[in-house]
Amino acid sequence: PKTPADITFPALSPATTARARMVHCTVKTDSRRRELAPPIPEAMSSKGSVVLAYSGGLDTSCILLQLKEQGYDVIAYLANTGQKEDFEEARKKAPKLGTKKVFIEDVSREFVEEFIWPAIQSSALYENRYLLGTSLTRPCIARKQVEIAQREGAKYVSHGAPRKGNDQVWCELTCYSLAPQIKVIAPWRMPEFYNQFKGCSDLMEYTKHHGIPIPVTPKNPWSVDENLMPISYEAGILEDPQEPSASRSLHEDPGQAKAPNTPDILEIEFKKGVLLKVTNVKDATTHQISLALFMYLNEVAGKHGVGRIDIVENRFIGMKSRGIYGTPAGTILYHSHLEIEALTMDLEVRQIKQGLGLKYAELVYTGFWRSPECEFVRHSISQERVEGKVQVSLFKGQVSMLGWESPLSLYNEDLVSMNVHGDYELIDATGFININSLRLKEYHHRQSKVTAK
Amino acid sequence: PKTPADITFPALSPATTARARMVHCTVKTDSRRRELAPPIPEAMSSKGSVVLAYSGGLDTSCILLQLKEQGYDVIAYLANTGQKEDFEEARKKAPKLGTKKVFIEDVSREFVEEFIWPAIQSSALYENRYLLGTSLTRPCIARKQVEIAQREGAKYVSHGAPRKGNDQVWCELTCYSLAPQIKVIAPWRMPEFYNQFKGCSDLMEYTKHHGIPIPVTPKNPWSVDENLMPISYEAGILEDPQEPSASRSLHEDPGQAKAPNTPDILEIEFKKGVLLKVTNVKDATTHQISLALFMYLNEVAGKHGVGRIDIVENRFIGMKSRGIYGTPAGTILYHSHLEIEALTMDLEVRQIKQGLGLKYAELVYTGFWRSPECEFVRHSISQERVEGKVQVSLFKGQVSMLGWESPLSLYNEDLVSMNVHGDYELIDATGFININSLRLKEYHHRQSKVTAK
Amino acid sequence: PKTPADITFPALSPATTARARMVHCTVKTDSRRRELAPPIPEAMSSKGSVVLAYSGGLDTSCILLQLKEQGYDVIAYLANTGQKEDFEEARKKAPKLGTKKVFIEDVSREFVEEFIWPAIQSSALYENRYLLGTSLTRPCIARKQVEIAQREGAKYVSHGAPRKGNDQVWCELTCYSLAPQIKVIAPWRMPEFYNQFKGCSDLMEYTKHHGIPIPVTPKNPWSVDENLMPISYEAGILEDPQEPSASRSLHEDPGQAKAPNTPDILEIEFKKGVLLKVTNVKDATTHQISLALFMYLNEVAGKHGVGRIDIVENRFIGMKSRGIYGTPAGTILYHSHLEIEALTMDLEVRQIKQGLGLKYAELVYTGFWRSPECEFVRHSISQERVEGKVQVSLFKGQVSMLGWESPLSLYNEDLVSMNVHGDYELIDATGFININSLRLKEYHHRQSKVTAK
Amino acid sequence: PKTPADITFPALSPATTARARMVHCTVKTDSRRRELAPPIPEAMSSKGSVVLAYSGGLDTSCILLQLKEQGYDVIAYLANTGQKEDFEEARKKAPKLGTKKVFIEDVSREFVEEFIWPAIQSSALYENRYLLGTSLTRPCIARKQVEIAQREGAKYVSHGAPRKGNDQVWCELTCYSLAPQIKVIAPWRMPEFYNQFKGCSDLMEYTKHHGIPIPVTPKNPWSVDENLMPISYEAGILEDPQEPSASRSLHEDPGQAKAPNTPDILEIEFKKGVLLKVTNVKDATTHQISLALFMYLNEVAGKHGVGRIDIVENRFIGMKSRGIYGTPAGTILYHSHLEIEALTMDLEVRQIKQGLGLKYAELVYTGFWRSPECEFVRHSISQERVEGKVQVSLFKGQVSMLGWESPLSLYNEDLVSMNVHGDYELIDATGFININSLRLKEYHHRQSKVTAK
Repeated sequence: PKTPADITFPALSPATTARARMVHCTVKTDSRRRELAPPIPEAMSSKGSVVLAYSGGLDTSCILLQLKEQGYDVIAYLANTGQKEDFEEARKKAPKLGTKKVFIEDVSREFVEEFIWPAIQSSALYENRYLLGTSLTRPCIARKQVEIAQREGAKYVSHGAPRKGNDQVWCELTCYSLAPQIKVIAPWRMPEFYNQFKGCSDLMEYTKHHGIPIPVTPKNPWSVDENLMPISYEAGILEDPQEPSASRSLHEDPGQAKAPNTPDILEIEFKKGVLLKVTNVKDATTHQISLALFMYLNEVAGKHGVGRIDIVENRFIGMKSRGIYGTPAGTILYHSHLEIEALTMDLEVRQIKQGLGLKYAELVYTGFWRSPECEFVRHSISQERVEGKVQVSLFKGQVSMLGWESPLSLYNEDLVSMNVHGDYELIDATGFININSLRLKEYHHRQSKVTAK
Repeated sequence: PKTPADITFPALSPATTARARMVHCTVKTDSRRRELAPPIPEAMSSKGSVVLAYSGGLDTSCILLQLKEQGYDVIAYLANTGQKEDFEEARKKAPKLGTKKVFIEDVSREFVEEFIWPAIQSSALYENRYLLGTSLTRPCIARKQVEIAQREGAKYVSHGAPRKGNDQVWCELTCYSLAPQIKVIAPWRMPEFYNQFKGCSDLMEYTKHHGIPIPVTPKNPWSVDENLMPISYEAGILEDPQEPSASRSLHEDPGQAKAPNTPDILEIEFKKGVLLKVTNVKDATTHQISLALFMYLNEVAGKHGVGRIDIVENRFIGMKSRGIYGTPAGTILYHSHLEIEALTMDLEVRQIKQGLGLKYAELVYTGFWRSPECEFVRHSISQERVEGKVQVSLFKGQVSMLGWESPLSLYNEDLVSMNVHGDYELIDATGFININSLRLKEYHHRQSKVTAK
Repeated sequence: PKTPADITFPALSPATTARARMVHCTVKTDSRRRELAPPIPEAMSSKGSVVLAYSGGLDTSCILLQLKEQGYDVIAYLANTGQKEDFEEARKKAPKLGTKKVFIEDVSREFVEEFIWPAIQSSALYENRYLLGTSLTRPCIARKQVEIAQREGAKYVSHGAPRKGNDQVWCELTCYSLAPQIKVIAPWRMPEFYNQFKGCSDLMEYTKHHGIPIPVTPKNPWSVDENLMPISYEAGILEDPQEPSASRSLHEDPGQAKAPNTPDILEIEFKKGVLLKVTNVKDATTHQISLALFMYLNEVAGKHGVGRIDIVENRFIGMKSRGIYGTPAGTILYHSHLEIEALTMDLEVRQIKQGLGLKYAELVYTGFWRSPECEFVRHSISQERVEGKVQVSLFKGQVSMLGWESPLSLYNEDLVSMNVHGDYELIDATGFININSLRLKEYHHRQSKVTAK
Repeated sequence: PKTPADITFPALSPATTARARMVHCTVKTDSRRRELAPPIPEAMSSKGSVVLAYSGGLDTSCILLQLKEQGYDVIAYLANTGQKEDFEEARKKAPKLGTKKVFIEDVSREFVEEFIWPAIQSSALYENRYLLGTSLTRPCIARKQVEIAQREGAKYVSHGAPRKGNDQVWCELTCYSLAPQIKVIAPWRMPEFYNQFKGCSDLMEYTKHHGIPIPVTPKNPWSVDENLMPISYEAGILEDPQEPSASRSLHEDPGQAKAPNTPDILEIEFKKGVLLKVTNVKDATTHQISLALFMYLNEVAGKHGVGRIDIVENRFIGMKSRGIYGTPAGTILYHSHLEIEALTMDLEVRQIKQGLGLKYAELVYTGFWRSPECEFVRHSISQERVEGKVQVSLFKGQVSMLGWESPLSLYNEDLVSMNVHGDYELIDATGFININSLRLKEYHHRQSKVTAK
């Protein structure tokens, strides 16, 4: 699958991206693979089953082992949200760590249709800039995790999300919304866990001791999380907002530089607010299935360096942080959808919807994707009339509009034309302005009387 | 003065830009200059004085003559808001048309300080995309026009704003707010005027008849308005949103293509929400005076093709229209200011301010710049803490952040660091999440009971 | 039908209320009925048909005659929205004035179900106080008027709404929304009409001249409009907000004084946000049909003097005015519905809905009932879960809650009980408070450093 | 001081109200007073000082003793916010429990001026009904508590707020905002405390054991909290929302019944949004000092049964609860201030302010009184023009407006008068309506085309 990283961003080895945000430290020394030790014998009496969101990386491998040691039956669960990863490798490896079962679930299509489309439809932009990437992924992953737990009769779910991040909130609020009786085990917030694993070397030691083969990875000075919607970088040297060189190392090849010198022109078509079809005008490439559409946009937008931002944001847990996000397809869609709405949606409807969009961004970012208020907003954002197509040019990181067209257009060329009267009575504007100025005049009259005193 | 058009956009002759938005048709045939006829004799008994916003172009020249014919004493007024124009030429020409007085007022500094800064501070973005350019200029121009009218004892003001546009509203609501007793004469809404001048040829005939020297201009398939903040293109072939070639002709040299292959890195400094200083890291150029700062940003951002949009928008008078806007300096400032706020402003304060910013954009766009509610919002948007600097890179049309720094920063590296505890008790996040999920659990419990029935 | 005036307010003769708001002056002298003159002969060639919202009173009778004189075929239309009126009398009288047809339409049930219910559901309260009464009636009346026009092939509609009021806006925006091609004839804004009829005596003379029998009415120092939802008083001596005696004359018997000394206790039941059933606990009276329910509430709430306000409000056309409104049933329903929502609706959903409710009130009050944005808000305000019943006591003008009950209640007694733990982990509140205070602490730290400098 | 309970509500013994909300259980058995045991000897080495919000009641007496036993130096602090209480008795008693110091602070004037006035000015009404009473008191009390802690060098503050209520949040968020380094000891959330004191009898036993004289109180089936702004009842039998008899016991004498049969007419005057003067028209009583004004309003409004509500609300910690609140003075002021604003404030300003008022209510209710965002809103709500007086009648629980007057009034009688033209051009309304309907017509045109297909 084409994901943002395919094109735009510095090459990361699959192994790195695989472990994504879940790895909050990186392995510094090379370690040779050893033969696997035999699986650890199960605890005599199980505490019950736990579904662990497992990435195959260092952290969640340690967590898996710990959960087993504490007497849980561990069900490993890997969600495919479009990240590059050797899922078959993971499927083979997990049992060697002593899992009861392994589930590898491809949720990328439902991610696009149920999570990305509504975000695009609401024009959600957290704090004016962020297209919500990861905060959309986590509820999608957690929803499947709960589904597995319910199906398998597991009373617990667990994750390796770091202790100061948003991911833990996104994951847990979704779980509790869907299954209030479920208990979440968050090892990175449990003293018995984090006191034992104070740094990477502790984690390395522990896995070595259990004979777990953790692949060697190149050192990255930040953590990376990747899926269909965004690739995001944070932590590590990015934690210092004052050091330009920190970000420059990610920016040194900022997409635009390597981007082709001729634009791609796309025709993007929506129906009822949903992306229907994309045609590349140059080569007549056409895509029409939601997932394929999205992946194609990632590819072509990525090629042109579209959609990278470097921002300071406010985490829900009350601290400011800094992140770099790449959202190529999301960026095109945000703009294209906005333009279709501009053409087909009434002025005042858009204004009300704009307020709801602010709310939607805030709700998703704070983890309330599955809350009644988020459902309320999704229900409100009616997209019946959002139909039509735009031509956009992608060039050197920019998305520019070239043309608009819709059977539901409210744009009336006769009405707006400076050379045609249309339905517009010229005298009306005078009355309109006069009545609108009535209260302004009154205010001035009274205000000046007061000032004059 | 450096204005947007200096750099980014296709070269337009000064004569074209001079008449700006006010010209809604363009002269098709060449016409040789003739010797000026002697000034028209004044009407016997004057109806009183009228201050006309005069541009030197075809429309306002005709209006000037008409007003005189109808018995008004005409005071011509040209505002310098940073557009390229031969003001001295205009100063000489106006009396030849029979004006009582001519005022050429440089309002560019107050435009920057009183109109642009508050817009940047409120992060005003009309309909998610438009930085408000012209709607900021008009109240600035109208304010001075009213001032002249009051000083000169004129009971009337007049303008050549077209009959279906926003400009008439921006101008008149400002006038009425500042001087309720003043009467606005809007010839393009008066049947006796527009019935006489149905097309360009009528206007041309009329000026020829009066011996008025209207400069020959190249044919432009749209109208242009330019000042320090934006350059905007609309009307003409742009009225058709479905024809890509229409916009492509403006896009064919879309700035980015010609932009240099190396970025400029700027350090941009704010204090109390006001732009204080800009330093070009490469050549150590520094600017510190508001107007000079703004013009420098226009120059450098223009060079890199920053800040052009092509959109469909909703005019206040209830019709959709399409416009292309170039706002190089404004675009950098919008992003830079947003980032300083992200660093120094509390999460919840920003959220409330975001709502007010939406309102501010709407109020300015609909012409209520001088209304009590707009004053209320300006007063609300406190900028005491908005201080610091950002490094931004300008490259191929993109503005990217490289670094943030502020003495008032609320960013706490220890707090956010994944490797340091800071003040953060890890156990607290559990309580935080649990309490936040209480009502979600309750909702689920009750909802599922209902569904189960 | 039971309307507000039945009970609460000073007795007004049917004839007065009949002419309602439409009469903006009152007849001062007694005039004896005369035999009707023969109907005026029709104009030779008709300008086409016009549907006139006819009340049988002085104004609309004059308008009717004028329209005929000007060559229109007049279709008289009377809407029954629950006001006290002798509709049969009107049906007989209208043809004598020369109408082509007469339609008397009972819209009271659709008024309750399509106009009142959504207002209650949105908790719409214009400017914090006004339950929107008349602004709900006008679109209901205008909708039927347009329907008749379309059915009868009339190109015109007409009304006698006064020239400075909201009614003209409510009526006309609804008409244009439903039938853009229709032309509205508003005589009170046409110089040829209002210059001819400068005062009541002119109107009286004119009707006398045409031999029209206008019933003699007692002098009222204000105008009154009445229907099922509100009775409203405005204009006349009420125009002076500084004179307490003006309002005291309406207040001197303000309902509460004459109200019974024992309360009525009602059980009010909603399902999906719609009033389902009302039971009077005392006498077990039960009502279950929308219109009957509403009328019963008017009766019993009126008896106890519930729901009268005297306010200064802002008209859409930019002026402040003063009105006295009586809305007995509406007031009970506003409060009861709010309480059912409090019990069954999630905290955050209500908060979003509260913002939409503000908007709804504003939209309805400004005449946009039939606009796309108003449809958007109605669609948004989901009422699926708003089910349950409340007991309310009505006593001396007050509506007090006595008890709440719902199968969809989100109120968890165990959870809230101070003596039971429920699902609530006590330690969680500590984490919740701590995380919520993180940014506050940070803000204080940084702020005090700054202050200390 | 006159507080709400003086007049309106069933007589409660001073002793009961003294312990207010802090007592979450009531004493069931009579217990004879005994001679005091000698003070408990101090712990050898102190853990430092703690400032305890002490009420003299059962809970906080136990907490005081516990804190001492655990090695803290306890500073007892009683805030006088207008509740009826024998403060001198408390001053004498506290040392007998072993306090290091006792501070009894009268904060009632700052409570009125700094906490109540801004709430009135913002028209804050939590969830459409609640005037915020207690949530205004707590930050005022906590602010002084922090002040004492800082002055006395105490590192800790403590309170007896119950574990599921809002009070703990109100108190602690204020403390942390003002002094981030301070630690709050909340015994009711500490297992070592609440496990020891599972019911009232445990608390009684413990005090008996320590020889502490806890006054005998009559059994109340709910808890009560009282101060100048509100008296509030909650918990106990009120926890069941379905049982009308529970609330009826508080309603059985619901104020209105015993209220006088003649109204009181007050003239209420504001300047810059602050209550300036109240005159009783009947007896010419006049009050002009903030605290005295407020107390007088409590007295007279209380007499007429004004301002009691019984509601279901949403606590910040995510649960629904039920409370009965009496806010006599606050209710008059809410309405009077609203009317002065209606008269003097521009329509659009009020609308923006209305949104901020919703936010203010939410922020205060959730404990963020001292947050930067709450400061932002207070700063925004400009009250420069809110000046004037209203006449209100108080009668049988109702507050009715009788007249309005202001030197800054924006109400123009000539403009609004149906019989005078004023500045209003009648033709203007036509243009106003037509332009407002442009987009509605367009929408209908396009929509019907679609439907027709």
